[in-house]
Amino acid sequence: MRRVAVIGVGLTRFGKHDRTSAELFAEAAGEAIVDAEIAPSSIRALYYGNVTGGEGERQLHTGPLAATLLGLADIPTTRFETACATSHAAFRHAVMEVSAGISDVVLVGGAERVLHIPTDHATEYFAYCSDASWEQPVGLTFPGVFALIARAHMEKHGTTEEQMAHVAVKNHRHGVHNPKAQFRKEITLETVLKSAYVADPLKLFDCCPFTDGAAAVVLVSEEVARKHRRPVWVLGSAAASDTMFMHEKRDLARVTATERAARDAYRQAGKGPEDVNVVELHDCFTIAEIVATEGLGFFEPGTGGIAAEKGWTSLGGKIPVNPSGGLKSKGHPIGATGAAQICEIVTQLRGEAGPRQVDGARIGLTHTLGGNTATVLVSLFGRD
Amino acid sequence: MRRVAVIGVGLTRFGKHDRTSAELFAEAAGEAIVDAEIAPSSIRALYYGNVTGGEGERQLHTGPLAATLLGLADIPTTRFETACATSHAAFRHAVMEVSAGISDVVLVGGAERVLHIPTDHATEYFAYCSDASWEQPVGLTFPGVFALIARAHMEKHGTTEEQMAHVAVKNHRHGVHNPKAQFRKEITLETVLKSAYVADPLKLFDCCPFTDGAAAVVLVSEEVARKHRRPVWVLGSAAASDTMFMHEKRDLARVTATERAARDAYRQAGKGPEDVNVVELHDCFTIAEIVATEGLGFFEPGTGGIAAEKGWTSLGGKIPVNPSGGLKSKGHPIGATGAAQICEIVTQLRGEAGPRQVDGARIGLTHTLGGNTATVLVSLFGRD
Repeated sequence: MRRVAVIGVGLTRFGKHDRTSAELFAEAAGEAIVDAEIAPSSIRALYYGNVTGGEGERQLHTGPLAATLLGLADIPTTRFETACATSHAAFRHAVMEVSAGISDVVLVGGAERVLHIPTDHATEYFAYCSDASWEQPVGLTFPGVFALIARAHMEKHGTTEEQMAHVAVKNHRHGVHNPKAQFRKEITLETVLKSAYVADPLKLFDCCPFTDGAAAVVLVSEEVARKHRRPVWVLGSAAASDTMFMHEKRDLARVTATERAARDAYRQAGKGPEDVNVVELHDCFTIAEIVATEGLGFFEPGTGGIAAEKGWTSLGGKIPVNPSGGLKSKGHPIGATGAAQICEIVTQLRGEAGPRQVDGARIGLTHTLGGNTATVLVSLFGRD
Repeated sequence: MRRVAVIGVGLTRFGKHDRTSAELFAEAAGEAIVDAEIAPSSIRALYYGNVTGGEGERQLHTGPLAATLLGLADIPTTRFETACATSHAAFRHAVMEVSAGISDVVLVGGAERVLHIPTDHATEYFAYCSDASWEQPVGLTFPGVFALIARAHMEKHGTTEEQMAHVAVKNHRHGVHNPKAQFRKEITLETVLKSAYVADPLKLFDCCPFTDGAAAVVLVSEEVARKHRRPVWVLGSAAASDTMFMHEKRDLARVTATERAARDAYRQAGKGPEDVNVVELHDCFTIAEIVATEGLGFFEPGTGGIAAEKGWTSLGGKIPVNPSGGLKSKGHPIGATGAAQICEIVTQLRGEAGPRQVDGARIGLTHTLGGNTATVLVSLFGRD
């Protein structure tokens, strides 16, 4: 199979927007195309992610709409939806198309718009990503899902609310340096710990926000990448699932789909966690970051809270996690998040991340989680 | 790239069901797995199509749910949505995974459940597959879209309402022999022509029904297929898009995405329309079948109506179209339709279609259209 590289990235500002998600995507895609220095006519397919367009914008079938707005109406388009991992899934399938030799240049990304919807409706639509038969009827929205995970982690490993708060403080500190981030404001441990409980033990500042935004990347074959001055290579891209039912999960303190997807991605890349210099991972809630740093192999099971407390995941620490600010500070437009994480890692591996740059980063990893931990995507990237 | 074959097919009965779409899919997938004579544990990925699950069942993120119900919770799953072409898109991406050598055995299909929803709501949700900015606000639901196409075809080519009625009569005649079909009842030209106008010139019997149902196929590499007694080979699978906006389409009497997807699929297969023995195509409205038979190259532009009138597309005719009964008689569970068409073609190429068998069929084609003709998928199949 052929090697595949990212040669262009684009993001809208994350936050509140007054345009449709497809219009937001057109902005991000335009930026990615300019960044890639390719002719738009060279693009052979669109892999597009969006989650709640039907519920929130009365718009399904968003692939050709996004392509039409870009002036690329005649290329094949596919819409992907795997909850919050949506555009990471689109990316993985796009890698298949290019590595299989079907196309040399494809556009990948996603968009979401939810801030025009009343918050209780947005919460309801997000909950559609959990099981409608058993979990939605009892009111188990995502803060509740991750509160269960947090409680299990606290009981099993002694993780504390203060350790979780450290994740929020760190990601807000990073996000200050990201001009596209939704919240560019440092917070203190006290701010987190004194914020209102949303779902005990998770408080308001343990939770990522609702966000509008879009992200796009241009993915190309090795032949095309070689003509480009700064390709970032895709070393591996893997997916794993887990049971859709919370009541079937054997150990709520683990996300086994993360562990399995990571194992597969590391195998594809011929790398291990010790080779990774920079990570963008799915911190939808602070506990999610702690569990992910363990599942990805950066820390022993149960020690992710300690790592957060000791600053090992900060810029300048052992393994910098979420230099972009993560979902917590940068924001979480769910259909765009996977692609946005890839944009950050590409920027980092190019050495263009400015004040949030991880010095000398050569290998980066992205991790995106969908729904009640039932879908996980992990990809690895490297520079020449 | 490796050759890919279908070795198992499964369908629920099409019509009204009292189970969720994911439960319907589990039934179809179980049938496909039994038909393929493989161990479920050999399946390495699920490619799953569903369109209105969010709106109608409060259920997004349906990939891992479907896999969980099948007892395959840990395999990678992806949900696809490209309007009515959804599970055909899933199929095309699954072909990439197997042909690229990533997996040897994958499960593909889709499901839809809408008959528990009031009809006006279902009509609204379907309309989300057309543009929300310009078309939904003026009430342009799909009967209206295809009425515009019909009117253009009538004006340009002299196609008549009676010719369109012939498509309905023929597909109902075929559907009588399909035990899975929603309507197994012959109708007359008079029934069609005297039925109420839904969107002039389209009458009730020019329209396919709302349907619940699911379909699944097992897709495998050549190595696995060679151990199987009756593989059906995928000779080509192509997608094309067109502008999302009806007001931008230059000629409403044509579906250019059909023409471009067909050209690509024929090129991949090294075949032409003259080689095809049996066709399942997207007859959501009778005019859609007429335009598709032209776009796929079976008849000259403008002569599809004459072909229908003369019976050239009937079983026993020059090129039998929709021996299953098509969307018109078999039914149209939109997320399942693309996969269901493939099930029929595989059954035909195996010579197992009973009283609706196309004698000696060696090459088959499926064609699925999404939304207001903005997405089209075409695949070609052959037997040894």
